[in-house]
Amino acid sequence: MERFRSSDGSLLSVGVVGLGYWGPNLLRGLIELPDLEVAYICDRSEECLNASARRYPSATPTTCYADLLDDPRLDAIVIATPVFTHFELAAAALRAGKHTFVEKPLAPSLAEAGELIELAQVRDLRLMCGQTFLYSPPVMAVKRLIELGELGDIFFISSSRVNLGLHQRDVSVIWDLGPHDFSMLLHWLDEVPESVAATGRDSIVPGICDVAFLSLQFPSGIVANVELSWLAPSKLRRTAIVGSNKMIVYEDGAPEPVRVFDRGVVYRDPETFGEYQLSYRSGDILSPRIDATEPLMTELAEFIGLIRTGDTSRHLELAREVVMLAEAAESSLATGGAPVAVGSHEQRSLV
Amino acid sequence: MERFRSSDGSLLSVGVVGLGYWGPNLLRGLIELPDLEVAYICDRSEECLNASARRYPSATPTTCYADLLDDPRLDAIVIATPVFTHFELAAAALRAGKHTFVEKPLAPSLAEAGELIELAQVRDLRLMCGQTFLYSPPVMAVKRLIELGELGDIFFISSSRVNLGLHQRDVSVIWDLGPHDFSMLLHWLDEVPESVAATGRDSIVPGICDVAFLSLQFPSGIVANVELSWLAPSKLRRTAIVGSNKMIVYEDGAPEPVRVFDRGVVYRDPETFGEYQLSYRSGDILSPRIDATEPLMTELAEFIGLIRTGDTSRHLELAREVVMLAEAAESSLATGGAPVAVGSHEQRSLV
Amino acid sequence: MERFRSSDGSLLSVGVVGLGYWGPNLLRGLIELPDLEVAYICDRSEECLNASARRYPSATPTTCYADLLDDPRLDAIVIATPVFTHFELAAAALRAGKHTFVEKPLAPSLAEAGELIELAQVRDLRLMCGQTFLYSPPVMAVKRLIELGELGDIFFISSSRVNLGLHQRDVSVIWDLGPHDFSMLLHWLDEVPESVAATGRDSIVPGICDVAFLSLQFPSGIVANVELSWLAPSKLRRTAIVGSNKMIVYEDGAPEPVRVFDRGVVYRDPETFGEYQLSYRSGDILSPRIDATEPLMTELAEFIGLIRTGDTSRHLELAREVVMLAEAAESSLATGGAPVAVGSHEQRSLV
Amino acid sequence: MERFRSSDGSLLSVGVVGLGYWGPNLLRGLIELPDLEVAYICDRSEECLNASARRYPSATPTTCYADLLDDPRLDAIVIATPVFTHFELAAAALRAGKHTFVEKPLAPSLAEAGELIELAQVRDLRLMCGQTFLYSPPVMAVKRLIELGELGDIFFISSSRVNLGLHQRDVSVIWDLGPHDFSMLLHWLDEVPESVAATGRDSIVPGICDVAFLSLQFPSGIVANVELSWLAPSKLRRTAIVGSNKMIVYEDGAPEPVRVFDRGVVYRDPETFGEYQLSYRSGDILSPRIDATEPLMTELAEFIGLIRTGDTSRHLELAREVVMLAEAAESSLATGGAPVAVGSHEQRSLV
Repeated sequence: MERFRSSDGSLLSVGVVGLGYWGPNLLRGLIELPDLEVAYICDRSEECLNASARRYPSATPTTCYADLLDDPRLDAIVIATPVFTHFELAAAALRAGKHTFVEKPLAPSLAEAGELIELAQVRDLRLMCGQTFLYSPPVMAVKRLIELGELGDIFFISSSRVNLGLHQRDVSVIWDLGPHDFSMLLHWLDEVPESVAATGRDSIVPGICDVAFLSLQFPSGIVANVELSWLAPSKLRRTAIVGSNKMIVYEDGAPEPVRVFDRGVVYRDPETFGEYQLSYRSGDILSPRIDATEPLMTELAEFIGLIRTGDTSRHLELAREVVMLAEAAESSLATGGAPVAVGSHEQRSLV
Repeated sequence: MERFRSSDGSLLSVGVVGLGYWGPNLLRGLIELPDLEVAYICDRSEECLNASARRYPSATPTTCYADLLDDPRLDAIVIATPVFTHFELAAAALRAGKHTFVEKPLAPSLAEAGELIELAQVRDLRLMCGQTFLYSPPVMAVKRLIELGELGDIFFISSSRVNLGLHQRDVSVIWDLGPHDFSMLLHWLDEVPESVAATGRDSIVPGICDVAFLSLQFPSGIVANVELSWLAPSKLRRTAIVGSNKMIVYEDGAPEPVRVFDRGVVYRDPETFGEYQLSYRSGDILSPRIDATEPLMTELAEFIGLIRTGDTSRHLELAREVVMLAEAAESSLATGGAPVAVGSHEQRSLV
Repeated sequence: MERFRSSDGSLLSVGVVGLGYWGPNLLRGLIELPDLEVAYICDRSEECLNASARRYPSATPTTCYADLLDDPRLDAIVIATPVFTHFELAAAALRAGKHTFVEKPLAPSLAEAGELIELAQVRDLRLMCGQTFLYSPPVMAVKRLIELGELGDIFFISSSRVNLGLHQRDVSVIWDLGPHDFSMLLHWLDEVPESVAATGRDSIVPGICDVAFLSLQFPSGIVANVELSWLAPSKLRRTAIVGSNKMIVYEDGAPEPVRVFDRGVVYRDPETFGEYQLSYRSGDILSPRIDATEPLMTELAEFIGLIRTGDTSRHLELAREVVMLAEAAESSLATGGAPVAVGSHEQRSLV
Repeated sequence: MERFRSSDGSLLSVGVVGLGYWGPNLLRGLIELPDLEVAYICDRSEECLNASARRYPSATPTTCYADLLDDPRLDAIVIATPVFTHFELAAAALRAGKHTFVEKPLAPSLAEAGELIELAQVRDLRLMCGQTFLYSPPVMAVKRLIELGELGDIFFISSSRVNLGLHQRDVSVIWDLGPHDFSMLLHWLDEVPESVAATGRDSIVPGICDVAFLSLQFPSGIVANVELSWLAPSKLRRTAIVGSNKMIVYEDGAPEPVRVFDRGVVYRDPETFGEYQLSYRSGDILSPRIDATEPLMTELAEFIGLIRTGDTSRHLELAREVVMLAEAAESSLATGGAPVAVGSHEQRSLV
């Protein structure tokens, strides 16, 4: 691997902001990457800061975000703070001339997501959103199978992402878990839903929706149902993709994360047969070998690569669309579950 | 068991109409019950008729339904024909003075369901709808756990009933598989949803919806999501019921069909703690012993019992509500997925 | 299918003896086969006899086995009685000139098994042993994969056949469940073990071993471990076959009964590398489509076919070897678990 | 937690030898424990040494074991080297006056295990063997259930410990994986088997047995079958314990590692009933909540505790018995699988 150096020949210098739940993983990943140094770690909580500082004494700990913004030698900032701070922190980073990596979702509103993207473009800085699942080997394997036409026409997708725990305090389960499914769906299908309907409930904390059932309608006719919940008897991350030719079950974390079912129903036209005929096909089931690479490392390496090459993140527009979907879903939830049109400047109720 | 005899002291005499997929099961069940005789078996298809006739030579086979209606010694008729014929055949049976058992759904429209109920009432005949799941030991065990308060407040229910195959020709998957979930939900929760939203698709046969995602909103605040499909990589009949105290997973046909999870999240009020506190509870998991009785037999015995005692079927009103839900779901599906109010004479769109 | 008729042109006439646990299955299978009639059903227990007689009124019920032996129109006898009666009943059937089907194991001793085979040969009658698993589609699929060389060299086989229940009164679990594994191993591997060791215990009924662990050593070097038990928390019928190229897991009754794992360890010789090298290979996992034919029907059709063609049962010698293995295993069990040589006239202790 | 200090008031000083597969885990665990310092890390391989040195710069890296022995300030040595070096390194440590922790098995022979124990006793030093499973919450939960009498009389135990990979170069699978099962069995049952029989095979590397089937006979009548293999289609660590009252399945790493089945067979004496009666009992299945503590940390804390209190390791005699069993199993394997008596000075063949 080539040495990644910033313009003046020194090692690329990165700061990490937010050391709560996910930040320490990003920090560990950055430390393991070659040819960069983590110059700062930053968190408002002294306790979180100290825990990371003990483990990585070479990074300067600080509770003051301005320290990062003001250091001219710092090349990039990686942000893993609560969602409602994403826009403010990322905008400040970009305005200070830093390449910026923000955990998903890119921003808490479509308008702010767009503003960040524009800011990066105007200042010619790299902006990337942490959508780890897009770098996960099973998700990539599914993408490849779809591209190869193995599934035929996709009819529908049914996904469950539920567990017990980790209630967020500032956002609903739609903003917390939804981006995982949204990013995968957008990536796999290469189209943006035209409408989203959402029902759900704030079972535990008043005002924070902790279970949601989403229904997405795509222009091609594909329907997707997504169940999101922080309240479930056991962890489940299962997505079924049903095509005219084959069906896939992707179950994250399972010993066989991708299973391809050579099953389907063949419809023969009534014009030929008088009455239509159905025949059921049930063939082999295949669990293809899936690489064991860690998606987080691939993702971070891509961010560093972007800084080196000057390319735009290939998933940045997708990151904006993810925010658009979350916003539309929230809007449907707020209005009692009616489908909401996606992709207009203002997301309108459909009915 | 006492002898069940009709008024004139002879054995109870029953005719079975419809010997396609489910009818032969009802026939076999009736044959095994004591103190009744299956006098007729009736189907339009000679092939179906002959298959059953060979097995049970004591019943008179006929392709003419009027033979049953006209025989004054026949006490009851059991109907397992396609959905669109339920009303016509059941109404004719009741008008001919026969006690009537109709497979679910009771009728293809709310109006017709209501008419059948009235007809039975006016003529003082027993009318019962075949909702086998209500007699299934796991469903009954779940009902008991709910009644005992084991779950605390129920927050939401998430159900999947999918398999590969058995596309119906006359009705959508909502009318075919939906009644199973509807009847269980109504039975467990003892309340009728105030609205239903449905999205779905006719993947295989044009005009016949073969996958549907339903969202039901109950007056108590409970939300239920129901996935129904004839297109799935593998058979799944799984219902998760999440309560404030415990959670249940009911999986029909599994070696442990009911599993009770002593898990949950406890919310402590911000008034006491400044900021609210959440604590996660994860205790034992119990698979209670479930009886092995066959629901079909219990159900048929109940029908025979009703004839003897003159009681009204305890699930008849529920059978009408099931039709009401299916109709509302179809209505939502037809109008693009907006929630439709349930329980009005005409099912209105909510938005 | 051609009509199977006995010499005088009439339908083939068969009698079934033993209507306890398995006999009714054989009876139902024979009834469903074309071109034969079940002339007699025979059992010592009036209760068992009546239960079958009600269902199949065309067969003459009798508690007297001689009725079958003495009827000159009866072509064949199917025996499903307790193991200790197999020899006596089968020998009598053969001596009376009847083609004979005996449930596994063929006889309770190697000597008697040999005598039956000789008797059939001398009298030119068909003798077949009911080894249903050999007709089971997954077992046949495994055989095909082995023959195609998919597994490479087979290293070892590990099998568990355990459940809760159905203690036999006259034989140990070795004679009851062992023949299933013995017949599959002999069929797949086409070689007879040279020694068997067995340990076990009579946990419940004094003197009746209800759990046994068998270790079979084959001439080719293959080792097989077989766990048999009537005492287990849950039913398990799982066989792992580990080869140099691929591995198979066969789990009877599972939704995917045969799974082929493209996994292994490659050993590279120290001569080339100084020290030996190992590399681990972990490829795709395949669940081939398995036919849904019922093994019992295939097996019975083969028996009827033998009578028609006059061929010798292709698994008759195997049936004798199964008895030989069971006898050797019992002998090892009795002497404290030392390996016992198989394949000598008298089975000698090895040590 | 109190401060653990050596006599002179300084922090307890520990050295770690062997940084291959398991050593780094012990090192990480020691680093996380309070009130001790890891003074040395030692390995013959510069590569292994450097990998750990980078992560923990405070420990002095060395390839020379004598550095540890010669440092009078070093209190204890933790050994995680290949099995054949255990005795030499541990004996040297004890002779140098260091408290000693040796990974399982304690030594490669019963004689050497005994010598280490004597050496520790004579010099009044703490000697402990790393038998991590004894500190694993599920194993402890099983022990508690047995002690409470939940299982009734234990009839037999059947265990599988198989995976694909990690062939050891110096020892067979019996010495590598066997100690896990041996230690659990000895701990649970509180008795030493009287004999062991083993069959197996060196499938991959000539002379290194990589699959073994062991049969252990306990004085109480309990029989245990243990399957050990480095060659398996998928990882499995499952132990079934069958008692007269209940049955347990312990599956390491499963979401529900301990499952208690209220199942069994009740035998009623022939004296009362004429013929004996069996009734099958099938009640609830319970997955008790299992703590999430890390066994490695509990184990290391216990070692440090022993140094402080001067107590003898409670599992030291068990560690010797584990070696005794492995030796007996190897001896049986070498002589063709005949049971070998355990517990004599020289392990004799039984037959």
